[in-house]
Amino acid sequence: MTDENAAPPPDFDAAFRDKLKDLFLWRRDVRRFLADPLPDGLIEELLGQAALAPSVGNSQPWRFVLVEDTERRRRVRDDFEAANQDALNGYSGERAQTYAGLKLAGLDKAPVQLAVFSDQATERGHGLGQNTMPEMLPYSVVAAVNTLWLAARAAGVGVGWVSILHPEKVSAVLDVPADWRLVAYLCLGRPEEEHRDPELVRAGWQDRAAIGEFILKR
Amino acid sequence: MTDENAAPPPDFDAAFRDKLKDLFLWRRDVRRFLADPLPDGLIEELLGQAALAPSVGNSQPWRFVLVEDTERRRRVRDDFEAANQDALNGYSGERAQTYAGLKLAGLDKAPVQLAVFSDQATERGHGLGQNTMPEMLPYSVVAAVNTLWLAARAAGVGVGWVSILHPEKVSAVLDVPADWRLVAYLCLGRPEEEHRDPELVRAGWQDRAAIGEFILKR
Repeated sequence: MTDENAAPPPDFDAAFRDKLKDLFLWRRDVRRFLADPLPDGLIEELLGQAALAPSVGNSQPWRFVLVEDTERRRRVRDDFEAANQDALNGYSGERAQTYAGLKLAGLDKAPVQLAVFSDQATERGHGLGQNTMPEMLPYSVVAAVNTLWLAARAAGVGVGWVSILHPEKVSAVLDVPADWRLVAYLCLGRPEEEHRDPELVRAGWQDRAAIGEFILKR
Repeated sequence: MTDENAAPPPDFDAAFRDKLKDLFLWRRDVRRFLADPLPDGLIEELLGQAALAPSVGNSQPWRFVLVEDTERRRRVRDDFEAANQDALNGYSGERAQTYAGLKLAGLDKAPVQLAVFSDQATERGHGLGQNTMPEMLPYSVVAAVNTLWLAARAAGVGVGWVSILHPEKVSAVLDVPADWRLVAYLCLGRPEEEHRDPELVRAGWQDRAAIGEFILKR
């Protein structure tokens, strides 16, 4: 055991907990970015924090792909445009109109694009905890994405999760191993504006429900 | 727009960011709990924070089931014991011996047991963002679990995620709607001891890898 691990745990006092709750409140899905590049090393620092997320059997199945090539970015954006048109075609009337007015991705300006995969063939963790719930591998990757998101917001970096994409198409465009499954395609950068309420609430798409609606006892 | 939403965003300063990183570092999967009950209202407060997690299309698909009934708890624990025996039978030699020595659930003592489901039939969010990646619903629930975990740790409450269970069995024991999919079965309570390093690292099951191993550029 190293000295660091033997140290007493930090005191997460009331002031910290209040600010942590503020962080949860102000973490937004950002689609409107400034094009300015992020400071050198910041993404690597944020990914290091993401890798502190819980993972099943300590399998650490997260694989982070920084998408920098202009041509690959263009092909991902083309796939988004096609999938978004298909999605729009599934709505009608007023909801179709609202959908058409939504901005659903920051692929146009975000300086950083990050594809996050789950290595479904990793031997790390030796399968522990995956027998009856194999979905625990991608779930662990989602925990890393959520951790990254919070660390980024605290550092003034906005994150947007683009799921209007065909995962197998993105995997092909990025030429990753066959056993990697796309979990998230993220845009990162300085946000154009800051909001406490979600964009989909402001746009009249979907309100927040009260927490009581989601709790049962058994 | 309410006044709260128009307020300027908080300043997440360097001191807060350092402590947030400490929180990520000290968040552990806890399997050894004190049996003491948690203070009244604390779970509800933590679930309220969990519901601030991102969700696809703001669908809020998380459904939280507090498992309080002794008989239901016994049946969940029986399922864990059976699944854990099956898992042990899949290992051999030294690894089987190590596995047999691991404590993999706090179902014996944790005062709170919480099953977290994804409502696969929710109409909230109107399907936005789910067309090509329907797994975004359970992924949103994982984000809520991760958020809950961090809020809990900051409040001195340990969380352990038990995935050595048959999800359909747990759903039957808890008598939830057919469209709900089990995402996580969690134990919560005061931890018996605090550690900065994961139990699976201390027990020699799986070390942490360096972040550089997980980053690619394309």
